[in-house]
Amino acid sequence: MSNDRTTVAVHGATGYAARELLTILLRHPGAEIVALTTRRDDAPHVADVHPALRGRLDLRCENLSPAELAERAEVVFLCTPHGASMAVVPELLAAGAKVIDLSADYRLNDPAVYAEWYKLEHTDAARLPDTVYGLPELFRDVIPAASLVANPGCYTSASILALAPLLAGGWIEPSGIIVDAKSGASGAGRNPKLGTLFSEVNESLAAYAVGDHRHQPEIEQALAGVAGAAVDVLFTPHLVPMDRGILATIYATPANLAGTERLLDVMRAFYADSPFVRVLDGLPGTKATTGTNFCDLTVRTAKGRVVVLAALDNLVKGAAGVAVQNFNLITGRPETTGFPEAGG
Amino acid sequence: MSNDRTTVAVHGATGYAARELLTILLRHPGAEIVALTTRRDDAPHVADVHPALRGRLDLRCENLSPAELAERAEVVFLCTPHGASMAVVPELLAAGAKVIDLSADYRLNDPAVYAEWYKLEHTDAARLPDTVYGLPELFRDVIPAASLVANPGCYTSASILALAPLLAGGWIEPSGIIVDAKSGASGAGRNPKLGTLFSEVNESLAAYAVGDHRHQPEIEQALAGVAGAAVDVLFTPHLVPMDRGILATIYATPANLAGTERLLDVMRAFYADSPFVRVLDGLPGTKATTGTNFCDLTVRTAKGRVVVLAALDNLVKGAAGVAVQNFNLITGRPETTGFPEAGG
Amino acid sequence: MSNDRTTVAVHGATGYAARELLTILLRHPGAEIVALTTRRDDAPHVADVHPALRGRLDLRCENLSPAELAERAEVVFLCTPHGASMAVVPELLAAGAKVIDLSADYRLNDPAVYAEWYKLEHTDAARLPDTVYGLPELFRDVIPAASLVANPGCYTSASILALAPLLAGGWIEPSGIIVDAKSGASGAGRNPKLGTLFSEVNESLAAYAVGDHRHQPEIEQALAGVAGAAVDVLFTPHLVPMDRGILATIYATPANLAGTERLLDVMRAFYADSPFVRVLDGLPGTKATTGTNFCDLTVRTAKGRVVVLAALDNLVKGAAGVAVQNFNLITGRPETTGFPEAGG
Amino acid sequence: MSNDRTTVAVHGATGYAARELLTILLRHPGAEIVALTTRRDDAPHVADVHPALRGRLDLRCENLSPAELAERAEVVFLCTPHGASMAVVPELLAAGAKVIDLSADYRLNDPAVYAEWYKLEHTDAARLPDTVYGLPELFRDVIPAASLVANPGCYTSASILALAPLLAGGWIEPSGIIVDAKSGASGAGRNPKLGTLFSEVNESLAAYAVGDHRHQPEIEQALAGVAGAAVDVLFTPHLVPMDRGILATIYATPANLAGTERLLDVMRAFYADSPFVRVLDGLPGTKATTGTNFCDLTVRTAKGRVVVLAALDNLVKGAAGVAVQNFNLITGRPETTGFPEAGG
Repeated sequence: MSNDRTTVAVHGATGYAARELLTILLRHPGAEIVALTTRRDDAPHVADVHPALRGRLDLRCENLSPAELAERAEVVFLCTPHGASMAVVPELLAAGAKVIDLSADYRLNDPAVYAEWYKLEHTDAARLPDTVYGLPELFRDVIPAASLVANPGCYTSASILALAPLLAGGWIEPSGIIVDAKSGASGAGRNPKLGTLFSEVNESLAAYAVGDHRHQPEIEQALAGVAGAAVDVLFTPHLVPMDRGILATIYATPANLAGTERLLDVMRAFYADSPFVRVLDGLPGTKATTGTNFCDLTVRTAKGRVVVLAALDNLVKGAAGVAVQNFNLITGRPETTGFPEAGG
Repeated sequence: MSNDRTTVAVHGATGYAARELLTILLRHPGAEIVALTTRRDDAPHVADVHPALRGRLDLRCENLSPAELAERAEVVFLCTPHGASMAVVPELLAAGAKVIDLSADYRLNDPAVYAEWYKLEHTDAARLPDTVYGLPELFRDVIPAASLVANPGCYTSASILALAPLLAGGWIEPSGIIVDAKSGASGAGRNPKLGTLFSEVNESLAAYAVGDHRHQPEIEQALAGVAGAAVDVLFTPHLVPMDRGILATIYATPANLAGTERLLDVMRAFYADSPFVRVLDGLPGTKATTGTNFCDLTVRTAKGRVVVLAALDNLVKGAAGVAVQNFNLITGRPETTGFPEAGG
Repeated sequence: MSNDRTTVAVHGATGYAARELLTILLRHPGAEIVALTTRRDDAPHVADVHPALRGRLDLRCENLSPAELAERAEVVFLCTPHGASMAVVPELLAAGAKVIDLSADYRLNDPAVYAEWYKLEHTDAARLPDTVYGLPELFRDVIPAASLVANPGCYTSASILALAPLLAGGWIEPSGIIVDAKSGASGAGRNPKLGTLFSEVNESLAAYAVGDHRHQPEIEQALAGVAGAAVDVLFTPHLVPMDRGILATIYATPANLAGTERLLDVMRAFYADSPFVRVLDGLPGTKATTGTNFCDLTVRTAKGRVVVLAALDNLVKGAAGVAVQNFNLITGRPETTGFPEAGG
Repeated sequence: MSNDRTTVAVHGATGYAARELLTILLRHPGAEIVALTTRRDDAPHVADVHPALRGRLDLRCENLSPAELAERAEVVFLCTPHGASMAVVPELLAAGAKVIDLSADYRLNDPAVYAEWYKLEHTDAARLPDTVYGLPELFRDVIPAASLVANPGCYTSASILALAPLLAGGWIEPSGIIVDAKSGASGAGRNPKLGTLFSEVNESLAAYAVGDHRHQPEIEQALAGVAGAAVDVLFTPHLVPMDRGILATIYATPANLAGTERLLDVMRAFYADSPFVRVLDGLPGTKATTGTNFCDLTVRTAKGRVVVLAALDNLVKGAAGVAVQNFNLITGRPETTGFPEAGG
């Protein structure tokens, strides 16, 4: 499968993550985009939906069934909202397609936790416990064999990548972790809402869903596996007046007396073989990651705390980029294929 | 009427111009806000609609009839969309209220022109020919006696104020005028639409409605009165990634050999008694007008053209500020009352 | 002194806080601006330095000595950088002027702490221990008698106002407090620097000075007085792509089992007589405070922590607005004079 | 030269256009970056100058002489300011390097015009008349043989590409053309200046250099060649609160009665073989071109005028991208090599 082009489809192709995904796939030497979908019935041309793609991709967004999708494409990316993904995954898999789901439907292993946080009974609950969580930096050993990959959330990727090295090595306590995260507005999606109008977001900064955001249990679940113990995270997201980018500022209790330099070494060693993680001496900023699949990290000790900082582009490393990393892994390609920023 | 507080109501109080209007009225020594309306039936508190007003105004936005409005308030500001204003004006006037309409419904004198540009039969057409156009710099003699004032559009105010002195004095030709206008996103209103989402507007610049914008006939009508001849304007609006502000860059054909200094003198003389127009030697920028009722102007001759530049805050001088200027005039107050930037 | 206008001067009038201060003073019924200064020798007109003030204030920015300043003005506002204020304060006071210093020079009581954080020997150290800290919400009893007021920092005002009620009542532990603060770019001043260029700040989010910012000891000093015990704060500032506004997201350890509602009541009671603090049920955002002297607060309990959120406009409540509050207090006026948002 | 990698150097590597150029060259299959320069003597690592390039390019910015540059690199890109380029070009060419100059030094053919607009005597005047103007859409026949290419300005590329088809075919008059152009702040460079601080540019819109910008004679010179007659352009640039992007709104007098559809056909035919020009039915916006080498164009007839609109990314198609197009041409490669948006 790795020598020729793999046929791919994007289900739910009208949002920001889908546009980013198409941009990456268009430059990918091993992907051939063969189908796009939308719930709309007027089959809009992708260039009318995403003007940046005019002249680059000549496809319409059709209202296709899972069977039609699976017939056309070997790999289907789901850019649908939660709830909509689980409605098509069983049929796609049954028809032999591989699926990379960018929604939250298959991220949580426990259907009860899903129901609690998403206020929705999971209709494909049996599949949850074994679905692979598609964060390649932690799970690149098991992703290649998967036919369904649950692509992680944007906030969660930043938070998990920041904390995993320190929890894995026992450098910080697994309880009492605070993640103060800030995101640009594209993370809120492309459906018109009052709260994401330009005149509302511009010159505005506010927290939302304090201690009550759906990425909180996702972070805790993934990190529990890393730490080998329950992990307790207080997660506070903020909406920042920019289009793209997430910065997570994370506060943890040290488990020993290691200083900044030692912890930087720990992080560098942990990610030595991860081409998309850059551990910095200086402080990361979102702008240095914009349009790339990098996650920039650093760590500091200060006032008896360990402070970890993570920056990434929410649409790339936080969504479409990691999806293509997963695509590379499940199709037997080098993880960096299609990413010029990593020489791929 | 000028010594005590005048009772005022804002009909359609949930948008950006209404918020700005309330902010100005709250600091106005002669206005007492007594009623706010919305089409919503849940009577939201104004502080939940406009968080900036929390603790400053304790009123709910109610779904009131014109009769109820006129019973409570001496002056009613209409911040309703076009079409909705003409549905209430006759009843408000009949009930004795004075009305300042921020919509486009009463700006055009000719019902046929209204129907052509707004794709709507005017239901109060008989009133159009005599309605006062509320641009005080041109019509402050007739506004005080009006019971209905048609508040001008934001683009139109900038364009008319820029061109009036030169057309009135015959310094430029009335035909072949080009108005290249640029506006912040608040001018597009507060209804959620794809085109005004933060992630669409941010880092984006585009023209729209080239030669086809509804402010074009409004500019031409007002300037024809000034010039004493038909005026022909090509109007091109642009959406700029900022919240507030309009800049109009206007190109006209000189009618004689006057240079920059002479034309600046003409503009200064024309606006000698207009406290809200500043004629600058330098080039105007929107930022110097933000939050104020000023319109900043300058003029240049270059390459055989006259170039006029106008900057204003679309929500203040382009909407709510001029509405309060009109309020001052129809209630017998100094034009600057309630405007600290003009010593009022 | 309270019936007539008080003559005021602004020393260091070319920056953003000075512009905001002038805007407030221009609408203030009890202030008469009589002098502005700059280190520049070309005596620029204030309208050329701050285009928004054109036509509103006809003064030049002169290079005046302290003696000249004190001769002209009863109250001198210092908008000079740290180091420059202590060079003029002794002479201004000796000449009989009252001084409101917006710099950091007189905020810290201990000269050794000042020297440690500002890398500068204090040249007026004897005055430090007794200088009044100009946060009216905490010190409005002692400010009126002061001839020198140390105006608080922007981050510090937000942090102290958020934490004071909970520390004063013993609702949270005084150690282990984390202040994750985010500021717009105007807080970084108006001197051209690479880091505050539009193309660097726009679409960018990063932390700086983690655990190492000069406002950290200022917060700890002020709160120690409130708590009656040493207070330990880890302070992390961030630069956000907006002009104005600070949001502080604060994490503390509860000292008892009080829930969100109880803590909201505590905050409301504490600020019952403070007209510029709004305690919200919902989450504060900077945009609702822009251009006003309000500090918006709320509190939540979540995951075993107390989370306090504070929003204010860094140039108003964080600098020029609180300076005018202090001006009102030392000239015997109501605290709200000159602030239309508070009915003043 | 076209099969192997060509060694390239970037002279003046610390600005925005240089960063963009490096980003494109890093993904280019035929370029090997071997040297970077700066006037600074501390030889900063490129990752400290451009954090986005960390981990992607391991070079220091050295203070190299032209001889050293020519020894290392076959092609030297000059990202130096005007005045600095002409100081190194003769020596670079003499040493056998090919040169692509992004400054204005070699764009104007007439040394007297250069001296008039740049207030500087040209020190390499003899070379001006024959230097190739590096706009491939017009000059792709002569660029391949050049050893020195004068890369066009950002505003000029947009203006020329918009007007060339209509002037070449005689569809518009060559006199009386108005170019109302709007640019993001990155066009103003990376040297810290008051006017490009975030707090000055944000929420701000203003014109500058009305009829007096240095790109005006450059546009007129290039278009005169196309039109076969003198071309007269009034050029008005504006600074817009965004990082990247130029939109030019251009007004011309029609030379005949052709309508919108006919003129669109003319433009499409003219650019049929130009892979980076997209002629749109709809109105172009800068956002659809961001990060790409596309120039999006359309044309309208309205009110007796021809209105042409052009959008491009000033750092790519307006600077670094067209430089790489030129690099491809002078090294015998397909014009699209290194541009995934064009399948290259």
